[in-house]
Formats: sequence, C-alpha cells, structure tokens
Amino acid sequence: MNEEKEEKIKITDGAGGRAMDRLIGDHILANFSNVSAGEIGLGELDDGATIEKENGGTLVLTTDSHVVNPLFFPGGDIGKLAVCGTVNDLAVMGAKPLALTSSLIIEEGFPTSKLDSVLASMENSSTEAGVPIITGDTKVLEKGNMDGLAINTAGLGLADKPISDAGMEPGDKVILTGSIGDHGMALMQYREGLSFKTELTSDIAPLNDLLSIAQNAGGITAMKDPTRGGIATVLNEMAGKSGLGITVKEEAVPIKEAVSGIAELIGISPYEVANEGKAVITASKETAEGVVEEIKRHSLGTDAAIIGEVNKDWPEKVIMETEVGGRRFLEEPLGDPIPRIC
Amino acid sequence: MNEEKEEKIKITDGAGGRAMDRLIGDHILANFSNVSAGEIGLGELDDGATIEKENGGTLVLTTDSHVVNPLFFPGGDIGKLAVCGTVNDLAVMGAKPLALTSSLIIEEGFPTSKLDSVLASMENSSTEAGVPIITGDTKVLEKGNMDGLAINTAGLGLADKPISDAGMEPGDKVILTGSIGDHGMALMQYREGLSFKTELTSDIAPLNDLLSIAQNAGGITAMKDPTRGGIATVLNEMAGKSGLGITVKEEAVPIKEAVSGIAELIGISPYEVANEGKAVITASKETAEGVVEEIKRHSLGTDAAIIGEVNKDWPEKVIMETEVGGRRFLEEPLGDPIPRIC
Repeated sequence: MNEEKEEKIKITDGAGGRAMDRLIGDHILANFSNVSAGEIGLGELDDGATIEKENGGTLVLTTDSHVVNPLFFPGGDIGKLAVCGTVNDLAVMGAKPLALTSSLIIEEGFPTSKLDSVLASMENSSTEAGVPIITGDTKVLEKGNMDGLAINTAGLGLADKPISDAGMEPGDKVILTGSIGDHGMALMQYREGLSFKTELTSDIAPLNDLLSIAQNAGGITAMKDPTRGGIATVLNEMAGKSGLGITVKEEAVPIKEAVSGIAELIGISPYEVANEGKAVITASKETAEGVVEEIKRHSLGTDAAIIGEVNKDWPEKVIMETEVGGRRFLEEPLGDPIPRIC
Repeated sequence: MNEEKEEKIKITDGAGGRAMDRLIGDHILANFSNVSAGEIGLGELDDGATIEKENGGTLVLTTDSHVVNPLFFPGGDIGKLAVCGTVNDLAVMGAKPLALTSSLIIEEGFPTSKLDSVLASMENSSTEAGVPIITGDTKVLEKGNMDGLAINTAGLGLADKPISDAGMEPGDKVILTGSIGDHGMALMQYREGLSFKTELTSDIAPLNDLLSIAQNAGGITAMKDPTRGGIATVLNEMAGKSGLGITVKEEAVPIKEAVSGIAELIGISPYEVANEGKAVITASKETAEGVVEEIKRHSLGTDAAIIGEVNKDWPEKVIMETEVGGRRFLEEPLGDPIPRIC
C-alpha cells in the first residue's frame, strides 16, 4: 500500500511504447470496466472505438490531447497537429471523418495573437481535411500551471467496415506511405538549434483522402499511424495484436537523408520517433502493389513503398533484414526518445 | 498590431460569463468558418453540436476539459466531474448519451494512487450514468508544467429531437431542477478551510435519467445546465438566444441555508457560481406543472420548482422580482467569481 502510494507517473509513461502500455494496462484498464459500445472498445487500445449503428455503417469515436513543445515548429504548430492527429486516427480506423471537437486549455497571459495563429492553423487544416470543428470548450489556468496551450480534439467518423490494428494475415505485404522520422527529427533539430543545417520540416498532414484512396484499391487488412514511439512501436503493436510476425527489409524503409543525419548526430533511432503524416498499411499480396501505385499518385504518398511482409513463423515479433542478409529484432522502445512531440 | 500582440488571456476569459463570450467571439469564432455538420454547430455556442443522421435521429457531439482545483473536494473529484459534466451536456441537448472518450494530461510525479482514485471515480460515474468510456488518450507533462491532472471528456449522444438553448416561447414556465450554488460554494468553503462549518457538498450528478423523465412529461422547449457563471449566466444566455425576456421570482429559487451562509460570508452571489447537478428547463405553461411533478419523484429533482416565466416584454433581459415587489435586472457576470471550479 505504501509502495503504491509512492509510485509516481514518469515522463516515459506518456511517450508511447512499453512504459505507456503499462500505465494504461495497470491503471486505466484496471479501473475501467464499462468500456465498449461496439466491436472495438477501450480494451482494444486501437486508434479509436466503434459504435454499431442500427442501419449499416459504424460510427468511430476518437480523442487526442496535444501538448507539443514548442507550440510552433518547422512545418506546423499545435493547431495543425490537433486537427490532423485526430483526423488521422479516424482515417486509419477506415472511417470518413464527420466532425471534430476542439477543447482549449490556455495559460493565463498567453498572447491572443499566438492563440489566433493556432486557431487559424486549425481552420486551415480542418478545411484541407474537409472536416468541420463543430463544438468546443475553453478553460484558462493560472500562470505557471502549464506551458501556454494544450488542445484536445475528439473526432467522430463513419466507416462502412472499420479497420482494426489486429487484422493482418500471413502473407500480407506491409506498406509504408512515406519516409519515417520527419516529425520527431524536425522538432528535435529545432529544439537543438540545428534547424539552419537542414530544410527538414514535420510531415504533419491529414491522411483521410490518401487512406480512402488506399482502401478503394482493395485488400487492406490493417492500418495504423506511427506517431509516438514511431514505426518500431506500431509494427510491434500490430504484430502483438494479430499474434503474427513481421519481417521488414531495412533498405526498403524510406528515410530522408536529413533525418538519418540528425538521427546519427543525436543518437536516436528514426524507427522510434513520431510521424504525423504517415501510415503503416497491411494489404493482401494480391492487392499490395496496386495499393502502393494508387498511394504514389497522391501528393502525400509519393514515397510509398512495400517495406515487409507478415508471417506466422515469428509470432508477435518484428524482424529487420539488412541488405547484407543480417537479421535483428526491432524491439518496441520503452517510450519515444523525444518527449512532448504531439 | 502591436496592441494585438500585447493582448493576453486573462483568468476571467475562461470563467464563463461575458469575458469568455468575448474570447470565443473575437478569437475562436472569428478564426473558424468550417463549424457545422447539422442544425446546431459551433456558432450556436450550445452545450454540444448536432450531426444529422440519414435515417431519423440526430447525433449530438460535445466536449469539456476539466481543470478543477482542488482535484478532490466535498462530494466528488475531477473524475466524477469529467464524466457527469459531459453526460449532462448531452442530456440538456435532449440526447441519450451513447459513449464517452477520456483524455488525460498528467503531470510528471503525480501519484498513481491518486490517479487510481480518479479513474475509479470515473468508472463509478460512468456506471451510474450508464454510459461507457470507449476510447482515450494519455499525455504526461514535465513537473511544473501544470497542476497534477487535467481530464478531457468528449461525448456522443443520440436525440430524437435535439433541444437547443434558444427554443423557449413567451408564456413558458422556467423550471429549476434543484437548489443553486452547491458546487461552487462547496469548493469555496473547502478552499477557505470552512468545511467544518457545514455539511455542504457539491451537487455533481449525471442528469441524463432525470432529464429524459422530464422530456417524457412533454412540452419542454429549452434545457441548459448552469455550470460556469451559474444561473445568472445561463438565464441570460437563454434570453439572449431566444430574443425573449425572463422574470424570476426570487423567493421561488431553491437555495440551501449553507449556501446562502457561505455566500454572505465571502460576498459572492449564489446566482453566479457553478452547479454540476442541476438544469434550467423551460416548458409550456400547460405542461410545466406536470414536468415538475415528474422531476420531484426523482432523487436528483426533489427540490425542483418553477422559478419564473418567459415574456416578450423584456427582450434578452432577466428580471428578478423580490417578495415585496421589488424588481432588478439579473445581469450576466463578467465571469464566475470562483475560478477553476470545473
């Protein structure tokens, strides 16, 4: 009991990865039992949850609180992140986003000019994604109680057939819609004052259009956006939830030079940092090539590639195959090595 | 421009009332244009927004971020508040709550034992209200960035016919489901260390059951829960949105002795502080008595009363009539005089 009392929340508990899995399992899921209104509920720890509709179609509900530091960074700001992050959570569930909520927690003394920039950026992203922000809430905290601004967005979508994280099948191809690590490394270089060295910007973008095109190409079995904890976390989650293995061809994974450069410089793996405009998709081996072709035609998917394959030989494991034939496990990190990135 | 740059957010901007109306009007509504998916959108500043369904019934979406201080107080905690607040926003829209989201922002170092109490309390309230928490998000901020815990809940509901704030008609009766000021004054006495003097506790409760009973009694034209800014704010909002006037018989307004006692002691009007388990309802003069009778049968409505009447003689005004025949305007406060109450 005393020990329990002394247990405290750590930064890594909120950084995706295994530490957050523990927090969610031992505390949130341990306390909640009334957690489902359809096939996919809180217990599935998917990107959102489903609510069966009486007449075909399934409602998808999701939520995300954004506490990014800094609020403004190369390629975007907390407003763009708040809209795109939630639109993307709906999109990877296979849902067409219908509407968003916007709930602001503002620190006393926050300049209204900065607030206006963030709100304008939310408006731009909501227009780009074609999803209205239909209701909201505003709270103000005394100075010193937080750092400027936190934004929660919840999203409601409608799916013909929701796509879960767990749906992949043996033999499926693993598709990545573009290069990895852009968001995490863009924030990192900015924080470290390295921005002048590269043109690298965050990849934040709404993926609903791209992913509906991908779905129309057919044969998609699972989709997930590799945010906190990067593709190392997401691939392991997909393997764990399906009970299957994934082999990834290292040379097939698209990475920008600027990203690998910063990664080496600061000693952080681009596989473990957040992306905000990318998706991992599994598709049947019959349709995968066609899915990639369709994705490549879209401006957000030009670097799309098949990076690996699903197998039943290595249950719940992700294996990296190097060009020269080397093999190693790609482990789920304890947490995203870059804190406060979304 | 420079002046704009210097304009900063104030505590009152988040306390309900006129200051928050300005913040929302001049900044949020000024920046957002893509704000509607149905009849009631962001622009209506209602307790939630509507999304038309193709086959009868209307979806209602709402969101609320909770930053109450202290996190634990007489009669409840931030977890109970987070669940009941959002359930009630759906209920006063005339919607049956279908599901909730839960998004936690936790400060590094927050004791997991306290987190567990809050989560257990969310679970209890979600069970009491009969509404599942189906999806969530968890973020952790570095120590010193906020005060312990903030919880956002978004809610999805389904209404046969949504009830807006603006629906009241001349001649309608104004019903209050119970005594005013309990939540705000309970927090205030606790903060001021006066708890020992009274048994006063917050009135936090889920109102979905009570308000569905009220609706079944018929003739309801508008409903609103008087949270931040109290009934002074809510009555003025309802008058403003309908373009009609409200007269309130002061002696008819139920107030607990403990509440008026603390109110006098600290010089704060119970009309201007938050309630978390009460609703203001307008109903046709034919049905109002019956509605009150039905409400009184429910444990959360025993003190329900008709407190006034809607007229067209005083557009957008709220007038208090005292026992001895005195009359004064009940103004909307600049903001709730008690900060951080929800």
